[in-house]
Amino acid sequence: MKRLPQPLAGVVPPMLTPLEDRDALDCAGLERLIDHLLAGGVHGLFVLGTTGEGPNHSYRLRRELVARTCQIVQGRVPVLVGITDTSFVESIHLARQSAESGADGLVLAPPFYHPPGPPELRAYLEHLLPELPLPLFLYNLPSLTKVSITLDTIRWAMDQPGIAGIKDSSASMIYFHQVRALLPRRPGWTLLIGPEELLGEAVLLGGHGGICGGANMFPRLYVNLFKAAHAGDIPRTRALQDIVGQVADRIYGVGAHASAVIKGIKTAAACLGICGARMAEPFPPFHEAEQRRIEQAVRDLQPLISL
Amino acid sequence: MKRLPQPLAGVVPPMLTPLEDRDALDCAGLERLIDHLLAGGVHGLFVLGTTGEGPNHSYRLRRELVARTCQIVQGRVPVLVGITDTSFVESIHLARQSAESGADGLVLAPPFYHPPGPPELRAYLEHLLPELPLPLFLYNLPSLTKVSITLDTIRWAMDQPGIAGIKDSSASMIYFHQVRALLPRRPGWTLLIGPEELLGEAVLLGGHGGICGGANMFPRLYVNLFKAAHAGDIPRTRALQDIVGQVADRIYGVGAHASAVIKGIKTAAACLGICGARMAEPFPPFHEAEQRRIEQAVRDLQPLISL
Amino acid sequence: MKRLPQPLAGVVPPMLTPLEDRDALDCAGLERLIDHLLAGGVHGLFVLGTTGEGPNHSYRLRRELVARTCQIVQGRVPVLVGITDTSFVESIHLARQSAESGADGLVLAPPFYHPPGPPELRAYLEHLLPELPLPLFLYNLPSLTKVSITLDTIRWAMDQPGIAGIKDSSASMIYFHQVRALLPRRPGWTLLIGPEELLGEAVLLGGHGGICGGANMFPRLYVNLFKAAHAGDIPRTRALQDIVGQVADRIYGVGAHASAVIKGIKTAAACLGICGARMAEPFPPFHEAEQRRIEQAVRDLQPLISL
Amino acid sequence: MKRLPQPLAGVVPPMLTPLEDRDALDCAGLERLIDHLLAGGVHGLFVLGTTGEGPNHSYRLRRELVARTCQIVQGRVPVLVGITDTSFVESIHLARQSAESGADGLVLAPPFYHPPGPPELRAYLEHLLPELPLPLFLYNLPSLTKVSITLDTIRWAMDQPGIAGIKDSSASMIYFHQVRALLPRRPGWTLLIGPEELLGEAVLLGGHGGICGGANMFPRLYVNLFKAAHAGDIPRTRALQDIVGQVADRIYGVGAHASAVIKGIKTAAACLGICGARMAEPFPPFHEAEQRRIEQAVRDLQPLISL
Repeated sequence: MKRLPQPLAGVVPPMLTPLEDRDALDCAGLERLIDHLLAGGVHGLFVLGTTGEGPNHSYRLRRELVARTCQIVQGRVPVLVGITDTSFVESIHLARQSAESGADGLVLAPPFYHPPGPPELRAYLEHLLPELPLPLFLYNLPSLTKVSITLDTIRWAMDQPGIAGIKDSSASMIYFHQVRALLPRRPGWTLLIGPEELLGEAVLLGGHGGICGGANMFPRLYVNLFKAAHAGDIPRTRALQDIVGQVADRIYGVGAHASAVIKGIKTAAACLGICGARMAEPFPPFHEAEQRRIEQAVRDLQPLISL
Repeated sequence: MKRLPQPLAGVVPPMLTPLEDRDALDCAGLERLIDHLLAGGVHGLFVLGTTGEGPNHSYRLRRELVARTCQIVQGRVPVLVGITDTSFVESIHLARQSAESGADGLVLAPPFYHPPGPPELRAYLEHLLPELPLPLFLYNLPSLTKVSITLDTIRWAMDQPGIAGIKDSSASMIYFHQVRALLPRRPGWTLLIGPEELLGEAVLLGGHGGICGGANMFPRLYVNLFKAAHAGDIPRTRALQDIVGQVADRIYGVGAHASAVIKGIKTAAACLGICGARMAEPFPPFHEAEQRRIEQAVRDLQPLISL
Repeated sequence: MKRLPQPLAGVVPPMLTPLEDRDALDCAGLERLIDHLLAGGVHGLFVLGTTGEGPNHSYRLRRELVARTCQIVQGRVPVLVGITDTSFVESIHLARQSAESGADGLVLAPPFYHPPGPPELRAYLEHLLPELPLPLFLYNLPSLTKVSITLDTIRWAMDQPGIAGIKDSSASMIYFHQVRALLPRRPGWTLLIGPEELLGEAVLLGGHGGICGGANMFPRLYVNLFKAAHAGDIPRTRALQDIVGQVADRIYGVGAHASAVIKGIKTAAACLGICGARMAEPFPPFHEAEQRRIEQAVRDLQPLISL
Repeated sequence: MKRLPQPLAGVVPPMLTPLEDRDALDCAGLERLIDHLLAGGVHGLFVLGTTGEGPNHSYRLRRELVARTCQIVQGRVPVLVGITDTSFVESIHLARQSAESGADGLVLAPPFYHPPGPPELRAYLEHLLPELPLPLFLYNLPSLTKVSITLDTIRWAMDQPGIAGIKDSSASMIYFHQVRALLPRRPGWTLLIGPEELLGEAVLLGGHGGICGGANMFPRLYVNLFKAAHAGDIPRTRALQDIVGQVADRIYGVGAHASAVIKGIKTAAACLGICGARMAEPFPPFHEAEQRRIEQAVRDLQPLISL
């Protein structure tokens, strides 16, 4: 646990899961991806999140990914593991195995099949916490879990030694500021933002950083944006945030379904030679026309990003 | 496969999963529950569905439940197993183990974390079908999966020999009738309704039956309602449907959250001496005041139901 | 008030508003439309509803429509007027003018800009009722008003002498049956269903009829469906309901936006020579390709409907 | 038109509508309110918006309010009038009368009963623009209108000389930044934010100001926040934004329904001696307990605000 900064500030990419086959990791791609991210200056890694298609993999593959990632990272940055699951028991299994592999923290959104009400969510967390061997970050993601973590639950969570912070992917800055206003209650508690289009303002106004999917492609861009906002450099924050907006527009706007963001990132990572574009089921890869649009976008964006 | 009627008509309860502990089946309760359901005349059993808290159990417990259920049922009625999962590989594992245990069919809603778009869902099903050892029933459940199965997908599904029918839990009778209008394309294809409040009209107008959660408590009521509707006895259909409405009002209206229906059924089953009220995580049991309201409801409803 | 049957049973079409220009009634078209509807055997007329594009017209045109409709109908069937408005005062003005013109009843959905909470809706109705010169039908239409009328509000409404019934356009048969179960509290209180795809089952199970938009095109079809269901003739109900499903599929499925239903009905009415297809703002008419699809649909449907 | 700055920057409160009776303006209250706002340094007034309960008033009262407001303001700041309406013709009437009264601009959300699709909205605006005697600001308010103005529509709008800008009340900063990224296409085009909790970041990152409901109570707070953000003073922006967060928490969190914000503001304005708390139908005033919570909140907030 000692390696986890309090708060955990900066850019912590939700790492892609490179695949060779339906149930086979692309181990060389994984190594290249981690090298690419660490070379870009990221402040941590978050595996088995939404962008990592976490819930779509077999448990065997999830365990392998955690073990290999920790082995490659060798403690250079903290590794967080997503243990969100509909099954309490499976969450615990993965948490334990993550600790054994050397991970540094856990990330958990509410169980996402049967949505728990606020007191049910709290009871669930009360049962879960004593079983967890690593610090926990809550994950607010109402669009996928159908549950918004209430401010009362967050107040309660701040009193739990085992809960280290929250990642907010609600995309609501009103909610984000409400959580931010609670931070003085527990110094060192971490508040990270999910949507990368909001990283600049989240950090300018006192958030600690972001879980930016786009950092899989262009880690330096997001790290620079974080640094500019952290330093209070408004013109640079605005300029870099606008490039992030163009990344979203050009890469995430290609697909037609909810998978568009992850497919866009994974396909762009393939264009950049990092790892293959193979998606986990239920997602087929992009069609050729979509792939070509991503290729063109990567070519057009690269000069902007190296600024 | 031979035991599956075409169509599978009647009442197929989504069976409760009796628990002794967080990760331990209540085997005696399971046996009592199955006896109770078969004595009530149900036409099949569906395990590991929404009411069975399927996704909330460990895989170990799921496998045990399937094996024991098949063992107890001994082919007296068809047993369907819910294999809905975010992970393709885990769905396949459970499907195979279900076939080995002697189950008769599989039920699958779309993967429910990352919602697939219509062509993605179809590609996923195309990949899945060759791996399945048993006939598949689709499960339309947009409130929990965030995905509605389109009519185009259903038209396609009717052309797949491995797909035997659909359970529609959209609660939209407009949608249900649109699916029903497609039935002449494939004689023997099954259309079952989810919400028990709609069983009467679903069957009066040509649906084949229902997956009625309330049948865990009062199997005979739902079987009688099915029979009345199937026979075109409108006054009796209306009278029995109204009793079902009272069950919903008195039992499902007690809880405050989305878990209210399942908690209500499981608590009532405990009142009836069938199995304990223990819920799978993330759900704590009802508080005492809620339990007493369920007890009273069961007492008040029983005279109506034995009519 | 004397002409209003209790309950008001049968088919009460939400009448199209024929337009000659942006703010000019098509008076000849109105006369032809009313003749067509009455010749088809409808049991009442509802003007200025959703299908009548009520809120989209100027108040001047609304008043003129009410006056002319009452003049043409001459008491042959009851005329109901939609007075739904965001402004209390304008609702009252229209209600009074409707009474002066000889209308028989009023229809009101909750104010639809700022959605009232349940106690606010009740207070509003308490203030409104004493000002109304005609019996009121509530109108439940959550998709457009963002407000669902609660069962508690309906229980209260049944105790108000000035409230004569409800039109439910929620499209939820679960809700419809919950309302239906309250009917014994006040004999003569009217329960009508909005979506015509649900008319059959609504009447089979005890509802009083429907506000069927499609009756503007084919009044006899909906009247026959009502009669079949009212008589308990299940095979005929099913057959006619399936033709209604085809009307919906072929006519309402042409447009791409929420306006598709109204545009489809108005364009089909134009094909049938009843009135022009001009829509009220904000809706432009169908493009030519869409018009041709409607023409073809009308040609294909007519042989079915005259059965 | 000459008085309208390009862009219209700063704080433009959506002015409360003081009422003496259901259909009677509180003229003395109106005068005090305008004095209070102008003394607080606001940069314009927006009457008949959401906070002004615009659609809830009779047209007579709306006309009177516009005329009196223009008379009192005497050109000291621009006056914008909300003409959002379900009826095209009534929007035009109010626009013309606003111009005659001396207003400076118009604000229009999409018609909010039947939601138009994107091409329908554009056709509607194409028909409307030639009829408008004053520059138009679009108003994006999907929570109440059920329609989000697409980026394509905004691109088109920027090419229309008669459209001067947009107020975005989507509460999505992702959307806001997407619109902001289009601003270089037309210098002088105005982008204002609706939710006051987002004013700081909206202006820090390049938006022009906000339509802040809370400015009815505490105009100086919002003007100071705007100035701090405009000057790039991050610590002061954060401090003032946090006070705005407390206003929201203490004043807007009292009510239980969607009316909570407007009721909170109007009740607080009454506590401050500005105008009465009477709401337009369908909203009853707060109960006494709620009123006392507002009184206490105003007392607690005042020392913070005068900082």
